[in-house]
Amino acid sequence: MKLAVVGGGSTYTPELIDGFARLRDTLPIEELVLVDPALDRLELVGGLARRIFAKQGHPGRVITTDDLDAGVEGADAVLLQLRVGGQAARNEDETWPLECGCVGQETTGAGGLAKALRTVPVVLDIAERVRRANPDAWIIDFTNPVGIVTRALLQAGHKAVGLCNVAIGFQRRFAGMLGVTPGDVHLDHVGLNHLTWETGVRLGGPEGENVLPKLLAEHGDSLADTLRMPHELLDRLGVVPSYYLRYFYAHDEVVRELGTKPSRAAEVAEMERELLKMYGDPELDEKPELLARRGGAYYSEAAVDLAASLLGGGGSTYQVVNTYNRGTLPFLPDDAVIEVQAAVGHAGASPLPVAPVDPLYAGLMANVTAYEDLALEAALRGGRERVFRALLAHPLVGQYAYAEGLTDRLIAHNREHLAWA
Amino acid sequence: MKLAVVGGGSTYTPELIDGFARLRDTLPIEELVLVDPALDRLELVGGLARRIFAKQGHPGRVITTDDLDAGVEGADAVLLQLRVGGQAARNEDETWPLECGCVGQETTGAGGLAKALRTVPVVLDIAERVRRANPDAWIIDFTNPVGIVTRALLQAGHKAVGLCNVAIGFQRRFAGMLGVTPGDVHLDHVGLNHLTWETGVRLGGPEGENVLPKLLAEHGDSLADTLRMPHELLDRLGVVPSYYLRYFYAHDEVVRELGTKPSRAAEVAEMERELLKMYGDPELDEKPELLARRGGAYYSEAAVDLAASLLGGGGSTYQVVNTYNRGTLPFLPDDAVIEVQAAVGHAGASPLPVAPVDPLYAGLMANVTAYEDLALEAALRGGRERVFRALLAHPLVGQYAYAEGLTDRLIAHNREHLAWA
Amino acid sequence: MKLAVVGGGSTYTPELIDGFARLRDTLPIEELVLVDPALDRLELVGGLARRIFAKQGHPGRVITTDDLDAGVEGADAVLLQLRVGGQAARNEDETWPLECGCVGQETTGAGGLAKALRTVPVVLDIAERVRRANPDAWIIDFTNPVGIVTRALLQAGHKAVGLCNVAIGFQRRFAGMLGVTPGDVHLDHVGLNHLTWETGVRLGGPEGENVLPKLLAEHGDSLADTLRMPHELLDRLGVVPSYYLRYFYAHDEVVRELGTKPSRAAEVAEMERELLKMYGDPELDEKPELLARRGGAYYSEAAVDLAASLLGGGGSTYQVVNTYNRGTLPFLPDDAVIEVQAAVGHAGASPLPVAPVDPLYAGLMANVTAYEDLALEAALRGGRERVFRALLAHPLVGQYAYAEGLTDRLIAHNREHLAWA
Amino acid sequence: MKLAVVGGGSTYTPELIDGFARLRDTLPIEELVLVDPALDRLELVGGLARRIFAKQGHPGRVITTDDLDAGVEGADAVLLQLRVGGQAARNEDETWPLECGCVGQETTGAGGLAKALRTVPVVLDIAERVRRANPDAWIIDFTNPVGIVTRALLQAGHKAVGLCNVAIGFQRRFAGMLGVTPGDVHLDHVGLNHLTWETGVRLGGPEGENVLPKLLAEHGDSLADTLRMPHELLDRLGVVPSYYLRYFYAHDEVVRELGTKPSRAAEVAEMERELLKMYGDPELDEKPELLARRGGAYYSEAAVDLAASLLGGGGSTYQVVNTYNRGTLPFLPDDAVIEVQAAVGHAGASPLPVAPVDPLYAGLMANVTAYEDLALEAALRGGRERVFRALLAHPLVGQYAYAEGLTDRLIAHNREHLAWA
Repeated sequence: MKLAVVGGGSTYTPELIDGFARLRDTLPIEELVLVDPALDRLELVGGLARRIFAKQGHPGRVITTDDLDAGVEGADAVLLQLRVGGQAARNEDETWPLECGCVGQETTGAGGLAKALRTVPVVLDIAERVRRANPDAWIIDFTNPVGIVTRALLQAGHKAVGLCNVAIGFQRRFAGMLGVTPGDVHLDHVGLNHLTWETGVRLGGPEGENVLPKLLAEHGDSLADTLRMPHELLDRLGVVPSYYLRYFYAHDEVVRELGTKPSRAAEVAEMERELLKMYGDPELDEKPELLARRGGAYYSEAAVDLAASLLGGGGSTYQVVNTYNRGTLPFLPDDAVIEVQAAVGHAGASPLPVAPVDPLYAGLMANVTAYEDLALEAALRGGRERVFRALLAHPLVGQYAYAEGLTDRLIAHNREHLAWA
Repeated sequence: MKLAVVGGGSTYTPELIDGFARLRDTLPIEELVLVDPALDRLELVGGLARRIFAKQGHPGRVITTDDLDAGVEGADAVLLQLRVGGQAARNEDETWPLECGCVGQETTGAGGLAKALRTVPVVLDIAERVRRANPDAWIIDFTNPVGIVTRALLQAGHKAVGLCNVAIGFQRRFAGMLGVTPGDVHLDHVGLNHLTWETGVRLGGPEGENVLPKLLAEHGDSLADTLRMPHELLDRLGVVPSYYLRYFYAHDEVVRELGTKPSRAAEVAEMERELLKMYGDPELDEKPELLARRGGAYYSEAAVDLAASLLGGGGSTYQVVNTYNRGTLPFLPDDAVIEVQAAVGHAGASPLPVAPVDPLYAGLMANVTAYEDLALEAALRGGRERVFRALLAHPLVGQYAYAEGLTDRLIAHNREHLAWA
Repeated sequence: MKLAVVGGGSTYTPELIDGFARLRDTLPIEELVLVDPALDRLELVGGLARRIFAKQGHPGRVITTDDLDAGVEGADAVLLQLRVGGQAARNEDETWPLECGCVGQETTGAGGLAKALRTVPVVLDIAERVRRANPDAWIIDFTNPVGIVTRALLQAGHKAVGLCNVAIGFQRRFAGMLGVTPGDVHLDHVGLNHLTWETGVRLGGPEGENVLPKLLAEHGDSLADTLRMPHELLDRLGVVPSYYLRYFYAHDEVVRELGTKPSRAAEVAEMERELLKMYGDPELDEKPELLARRGGAYYSEAAVDLAASLLGGGGSTYQVVNTYNRGTLPFLPDDAVIEVQAAVGHAGASPLPVAPVDPLYAGLMANVTAYEDLALEAALRGGRERVFRALLAHPLVGQYAYAEGLTDRLIAHNREHLAWA
Repeated sequence: MKLAVVGGGSTYTPELIDGFARLRDTLPIEELVLVDPALDRLELVGGLARRIFAKQGHPGRVITTDDLDAGVEGADAVLLQLRVGGQAARNEDETWPLECGCVGQETTGAGGLAKALRTVPVVLDIAERVRRANPDAWIIDFTNPVGIVTRALLQAGHKAVGLCNVAIGFQRRFAGMLGVTPGDVHLDHVGLNHLTWETGVRLGGPEGENVLPKLLAEHGDSLADTLRMPHELLDRLGVVPSYYLRYFYAHDEVVRELGTKPSRAAEVAEMERELLKMYGDPELDEKPELLARRGGAYYSEAAVDLAASLLGGGGSTYQVVNTYNRGTLPFLPDDAVIEVQAAVGHAGASPLPVAPVDPLYAGLMANVTAYEDLALEAALRGGRERVFRALLAHPLVGQYAYAEGLTDRLIAHNREHLAWA
């Protein structure tokens, strides 16, 4: 079995490698190719990857290359985890929207649109080259915004599944609270990527007992703390929204917060510098502690599980993934990409049926889906007007003057990444 | 033919009477009953109504009563145009939401929810009494929020159609611009009540030439002025949004405006006082000029046209009304109430097919429909949580803290009108 | 010795009575007259006052009357603690400014101006009648806004001193923290009423050791909690701002808070109802617990201390009062009213010298003093333009559009209390 | 007579040169030295300067150099018009404050503080070198923020006067409206640099008739348009505020505007590129039209007039300059720098007496003066806390959270220009 990781030079990668090593029975990788144009950091990351495999006795080979076509040749699955423009672009996504009084975030709102515009053409080009190299290869997309990117891949006819670590994070968290193994926790997870609600938490599987009310009663404070939402909100909704819903439920508060502290840019950049320095240490043969603070927890578990299932191996029967709606949520178009529990196998992902969704969530999903539709249009076809229309459609923008100001800034700050600008 | 007007003591009524008089060939009313609990103002309005009929040679009888059951007895159609709480309640709707930084308006946002909560139970009670008096009578609802009220009526099994004067206003305006008769102008009008867009303007009928681009090119400035939106916005969208979309497209600007000038309350109340004084003048036998500034233009034409068609007479074949979606807009539930062109006859209103709707509008419609769903729940069943949920669902609220602040205020300011509070 | 309390029917009064009883050695009152036009509540309060005196063996007589001239006849000192318009007017002060995005508060900002406009003419009329009855009587003003009201009194040539409980509250709080008696704590208290900073806390007197750094180091968290300001802010400034500075240092946060919870009106009104019910209980012969939650802590101690000194008795040598600046703060006009430590005796209050004030505070004091100048003009002479100018001058308003919106609302909500409107 | 212009490579310089040429009788320059470290652009500008002099028959020599000490050697007056960090830094000043909801402007608010911090040390170093080269030379400072920079120069004992073109702009504008020559218009101009009001417009001199009411009545609309303030505001105040007051009187409106259109950066940078290209054209021998759109109108006239007076020549008797207060405005410290009419001669500038200032303006001046005090402290001594304190003191900031967010950003965006950061 051969796996390729595009964007393999990311400082995240050791997390992934660690998972591959620990879970090698589930996903017996023979060859792992880390592909990245940034050869410098790729070598640092690749070296550590080899030492981790070695230390844990993993027999697989780790190859590093900046040649995409060679790297994906013969791969059974290709993981996409790239970041067009790097942390610098992310920093921009997080700051210029604030100038217009809008939230600055790299996956939601105007910043998320910027990231989509930078990313979709690059990912589609990569996917096309993957398909040419191996039409049967699965593409697993971690690259944000996962919903829009996955939709772009599926519309272009690729064998693709979108993956995010929000659901697995909740699963592990709830398992800890319940004192059961993660595999025993089945989430009623519904929505779009980064716009999801846990409407039930079941023991044993899709038909298991719903222990969410109990979890909220016993651990509501702790959950609210993590999500930085009022405990009362969770109690009243009776569901657990994802962290990203805070950008909606507390938008203005977040904008104010972001405006009253320094941007995360320096912080993250500093952490990356430190990590890369560590990775260069030939003594280091495990993922360092610091990496845990970098985000992306459990991402390797989720990736291994999904790849294993797609490649016909021993992954979980049901996994939360991003794939076509096809009637699962009747209030969304069939070709919307939703994030729900799906039965995953070598034929791909088939969403499980979802109980009727409260209008309180369905309305927002429909609105954001419409935005994603227009965002994808803008990403594929370019043009100032398409950017403007996507922004005007976004429920966190919605106003003409802001859409105008954001459009100008999005283009000015991303010109080098937008072929049409 | 007998017609009853519930809320007949409104200062608007002479506008309606004037239309009945002018259009008596279309709608040959034999008996017109004005029903209103406020006998004082009812007598003033009724007297003027009789004088208008007399002057124009209309043979119909005008009856005034505060007895609803007697008034609707034997009526072929009942027009609802009441305002629970009167102008005072409206003034509240327009001000307290501003305290939370949200728009104050009587049909949109938190103010619109307040009005729905006050109004739905009263309208349902009236409708039930109409049904008891005459199961075949048509109910025509002008009472705002028309979308939610009509949905309440339809869900309760009433023979009801919702009516608003936005569409007919555009029709007359465009006809004037085009130099044709209003009947020659067919609007591609789509959305929910007070959330509509004219996506096409056709000459001669549903299949006629679309002259909207020409209208925008030649009269864009004047339209933008009336709608108080930037001309550029209309050009870029290529459609004409209703005036109420300004609360969405320019929400914060409107909030600031409302906060920097006195409320409209004194103004409207003053105008009403003046009108009632005029109505008491036994020499007055036509609607006074001042009434034109009171809003509600062309409402009588729309009402006559709709009543005539519903009662099997000579109304227009196609009319813009509020009725069940039933698949017309595939992205909305079948039981949503939409505002579109419909074929109207004695069997009721059947929406015409609608061309695919731009996601830019569809997303917002879906979101507001979800709000209306929750708003109707709150209106029918009451309770603080249901109010909160409807507010949180509204795209002009959407944030927890605001929904909280608005919920408290909505209840505090409307307690006397809310049975459960 | 005879004392009159104008506004004696306030639910606060039992707090004052309790102080008079406890501190009768300092201030040996022979006759206490409670004056209030609201005879109903006055009788309830007066009855309790008599029972408190009786229980504590105070020999003084308590008289109640709604006749101001009779009540102040022969009084050595008159305390003013009235509230024109009552809690209803206060509730208005706290809400309508929010409609313009400005803080709603009864002593600061637009609400404070409204209160000044309602109050100054009433207080001046009372003072004139006091002077006629007894030209030698001292007027002690607790009525807010104390700074503006005291300035009005002094400009009109009255023997008046303004008093507030902020300083005594800090004194007691610090004494508790330091484990000393309150009399040992001397505050370097500087500013205008409700715009003050404790720049030093000295042991033993004006020349004592400054233990403020120690207090901040050891009790900063607790102080910050009470003031609802970030602990970090206190540390960085190295001073303790009064609670009212929060309306400046965290203005927008406060506006948001006020907009996301119900107004305090119902709460306070409810508490007053409850208190009055208690006061009517003939068994009650002490101030009830609940009164402590009503605000105004230590106000009786401050009043007794000040009255005792002014009447030549045994009050403290130095007290924090409101009186003419006369060069104490060189950056303010001589006729500004400031709130500082003063030597108080039967000749009145003479400010102690104040160390140079940090521009960080001096700039704000100068700005607010200019506002108070214009506010007093508006209160004395009336007129829409004067209201507008005072609002535009207030650092919490400062913008044209807000000043406009606030002017309209101030007048609309206070018309019955403004002779000129 | 020898003049040196530090920052002589500015694209503004040809405007100055043109004035020197036209007004050579008033200011007979023999040698003009343009000093600038940017030799490339200096040569372009210098070449044009020589051609302008030549064309107009001006006999003076134009010398260009990047050697400051050599350039100012023997100069009778030195004009400072530099911009530390160039247009790029200005662009930053105009954008990052918006992230905190505050106005982004290069002389006012947080952006103005940033500019002061970058500029003061550089200017003081230059002034020191001027003094060493020629202790008798006058320093004329155009460099913004002129008020703070002038205060820094005066405190360090330099022979300096601060100059701005706001007053001369009004003078010329009013003269045009009145149909008189500019010299006949005497302004009652009062305030701080970029915080001034024209409280009177007199014909013939300081004692002339005040025609401001007439000007407002006849040209109010046109003035309001230019200032982008409501005409009504001018009428109600009865004075003409400077354009910069809009950042105060309409702060939130300006923030919104800035957030809903692209930054001016690209625009100005583009204009500069174009100008420099023109300047390189050996055929060009006059200031190009485009320069008029660059701002800085009448700056050369003001500079010539001031230099002529300071050097004992034929400048106007009274000129609006920035100099020490010394009791002119009694509510400001003596060592505040104010911008008022002054008698100017070879001994320097002596403010004319100023009529009592309305508290509506005095309060704001005092507040901003306090800010300038702290800003200068921060500029001279550096340090995060001093930056924070200056920001907290600014009436356009004033809130803790914003001061925090702005402090972080100011430092992050200006690190390379701040020795201590």
